[in-house]
Amino acid sequence: MKKIEPRRLKGFRDYPPPLMALRNRVIDVVREEAELAGFQAIGTPALEYAETLLGQGGEETDKQTYRFKDNGDRDVALRFDLTIPFARFVAEHQGELTFPFRKLQIGDVWRGENTQKGRYREFCQCDLDIIGVDTAAADAETLGVFQRILQKIDCGPFTMRVGNRKILSALIKKFVGDAADEHKVLIAVDRLEKNPDALASLLQGKELALLGALKGPFADVREALAGDPALVAECARLEQTVALAGGSARVDLTIARGLGYYTGVVFETTLDQLKDFGSVSSGGRYNDLASRFTTRELPGVGGSVGLDRLVAAMEELGKVQDKQGAGPVFVAVAGDDALAHAIALAGELRTAGIATDVGLVPKLGNQFKHADRLGSPFVIVVGATEMQAGAYKVKKLADGSEITVKRGDLAAAVRRQ
Amino acid sequence: MKKIEPRRLKGFRDYPPPLMALRNRVIDVVREEAELAGFQAIGTPALEYAETLLGQGGEETDKQTYRFKDNGDRDVALRFDLTIPFARFVAEHQGELTFPFRKLQIGDVWRGENTQKGRYREFCQCDLDIIGVDTAAADAETLGVFQRILQKIDCGPFTMRVGNRKILSALIKKFVGDAADEHKVLIAVDRLEKNPDALASLLQGKELALLGALKGPFADVREALAGDPALVAECARLEQTVALAGGSARVDLTIARGLGYYTGVVFETTLDQLKDFGSVSSGGRYNDLASRFTTRELPGVGGSVGLDRLVAAMEELGKVQDKQGAGPVFVAVAGDDALAHAIALAGELRTAGIATDVGLVPKLGNQFKHADRLGSPFVIVVGATEMQAGAYKVKKLADGSEITVKRGDLAAAVRRQ
Repeated sequence: MKKIEPRRLKGFRDYPPPLMALRNRVIDVVREEAELAGFQAIGTPALEYAETLLGQGGEETDKQTYRFKDNGDRDVALRFDLTIPFARFVAEHQGELTFPFRKLQIGDVWRGENTQKGRYREFCQCDLDIIGVDTAAADAETLGVFQRILQKIDCGPFTMRVGNRKILSALIKKFVGDAADEHKVLIAVDRLEKNPDALASLLQGKELALLGALKGPFADVREALAGDPALVAECARLEQTVALAGGSARVDLTIARGLGYYTGVVFETTLDQLKDFGSVSSGGRYNDLASRFTTRELPGVGGSVGLDRLVAAMEELGKVQDKQGAGPVFVAVAGDDALAHAIALAGELRTAGIATDVGLVPKLGNQFKHADRLGSPFVIVVGATEMQAGAYKVKKLADGSEITVKRGDLAAAVRRQ
Repeated sequence: MKKIEPRRLKGFRDYPPPLMALRNRVIDVVREEAELAGFQAIGTPALEYAETLLGQGGEETDKQTYRFKDNGDRDVALRFDLTIPFARFVAEHQGELTFPFRKLQIGDVWRGENTQKGRYREFCQCDLDIIGVDTAAADAETLGVFQRILQKIDCGPFTMRVGNRKILSALIKKFVGDAADEHKVLIAVDRLEKNPDALASLLQGKELALLGALKGPFADVREALAGDPALVAECARLEQTVALAGGSARVDLTIARGLGYYTGVVFETTLDQLKDFGSVSSGGRYNDLASRFTTRELPGVGGSVGLDRLVAAMEELGKVQDKQGAGPVFVAVAGDDALAHAIALAGELRTAGIATDVGLVPKLGNQFKHADRLGSPFVIVVGATEMQAGAYKVKKLADGSEITVKRGDLAAAVRRQ
């Protein structure tokens, strides 16, 4: 047979067992904390009509979207985030849902963007959103659940920086003027840390006053916007949201978020030990999203845990465990005649909740080697003698010690060790 | 804003909370039983080079594959199963893996096939495979773990039918002759239940002897193949595999499986109450798969739980729970001044492991209604009085009864109820 090179697409990655174990551990924490905060899981397809997805995330996102004609000549695209499919979902299923609706959505998304450390073209997002209310409490509950998730995951200290699109927009108007293309300025503010010169070259000196306001004391911003009651309320709400969210949340008006649909609070979270990895959790309020599909007003607030970036960060922090990590028991089979007995014994241990492997290679010595490579702490040998006696040697691989245990006592014996 | 219709692509489905809860329950069982049997999770991308995926699953599968040019003009495709990406994975990562390698892989796959009940164009597969050995024990351990999964999932009695490609191929040669296009006959046998006439029209009478052998006593098959030692051994191995796998496994030589890469044992599992749903778990041995990528011999055996078909079957069996299923506690907020206190209280309950929602709509009455719709058993009211007293009314929604509990005792009080 002609050989082909086993190669992955650029920007796509595999998850071997140690990395996948870490990934699943993070997902389990997300699911657990989401459930504890009353968020309910939903799912939507990876593929949608291109019309549903495009024109919503901004020009750059549209360009990065995997879009193609399917076999039925439909214009389709792979989702580039979970928020827009969720808007479609809410519009379609609003009759079945109870609002305010707290949802959890975990799924892969695809963006053909330039690859860099911790950034892939396929990545898994864990989205949590609250739909149907527009209050500081909803904003804070959302920020709060992301903080709880990151606290429980073993990824070190982090900082959640919280901005506000309405305030940012007002400050751009005030300090740069109506003439500026607000979205371009916003994008330049969003990339301030990565590319500090872009804003300067866009605003030709006017950026100084804007940056002064964004980076200065929040009291000065409040004063600058004091003439507009709506903006005064927005300033108060931002401060209340950050106070209610607690933890590491703090106001930072330079947080802009690139996506076009945000309308209120926006946030980004970085790991203190790995700031250059970018945000591992971000989001915001997007009151106008579902309005593309329905006349019903459905304000929302939400965000994502960028699972793959977080896992990449944890790799960098040395949180991956090397051993493939099999269960505690490896049943070694001494001869073909013992096979049925060994498989039955493994079944009993599994039923008792003990992860158990069974030797599948011919020689007992090779099976012991395999158990050792897997990292199984115990080997139970099944051969003619053991079958006749109804008692088995349980060998501890760490020190070579062994005890003999009756069939019915095996699970308890393993647990006791 | 111009409205667009919120519509899904044909053959794709959403998972609202009750259905998603069921889906996650099934996935959790798969992960749990996989772990108990020593299978380790891995992950591979949804998109691969078309060259990697195509030409392996058979002509029909190739036609159904979502294939397109990406933005970098690469010829790419969405995976139509997890087996072929897994073969690429094993070839690429063989140095990191310990063989025999037991793997679990859970992921979505895409096929543009005709839609029917319980069949979608996007569906999630849960694959378990053992790579690196070619023995009845490995076959049986694989069949066994799928039986354990289905036993633990609440989907009623099931039957696992087990065939063998080598035996089927020998019987086709014997009763139909070398002239027949073996793969066409195999496909017709595979569809025997759905389309009983296809085999007859293909074989013009010769199907009678073939079907007689396939459906007759296995002893007759053994006798018919007695001249060939390799086939005699294969017959013995099939019987041994079925005996070791136990449970509902039984020999059925009409099980053929359509995919081109199977070379030994093949199996399909149907729910006894819903036979027309087709197989909910199937697979087989595919010794030649990784040989496309590597000279190393890596025999394998494995199969899938067809998650979405299983979930559709469980819907049909009435296993979906209607209530959105929030946590046990709903913290109602009596007035804005109580908000910070309520959110802090909810945080304490969550930390104690109790799923807790917080009221986000203005009036207390509306919050009670929301708690009731969600199905929360308890509402804890937080208002000025409670904050001052440091004690809270815990109201049981089922009977309207209430008790007053101090802050530190709330978690215990909810658990006791």
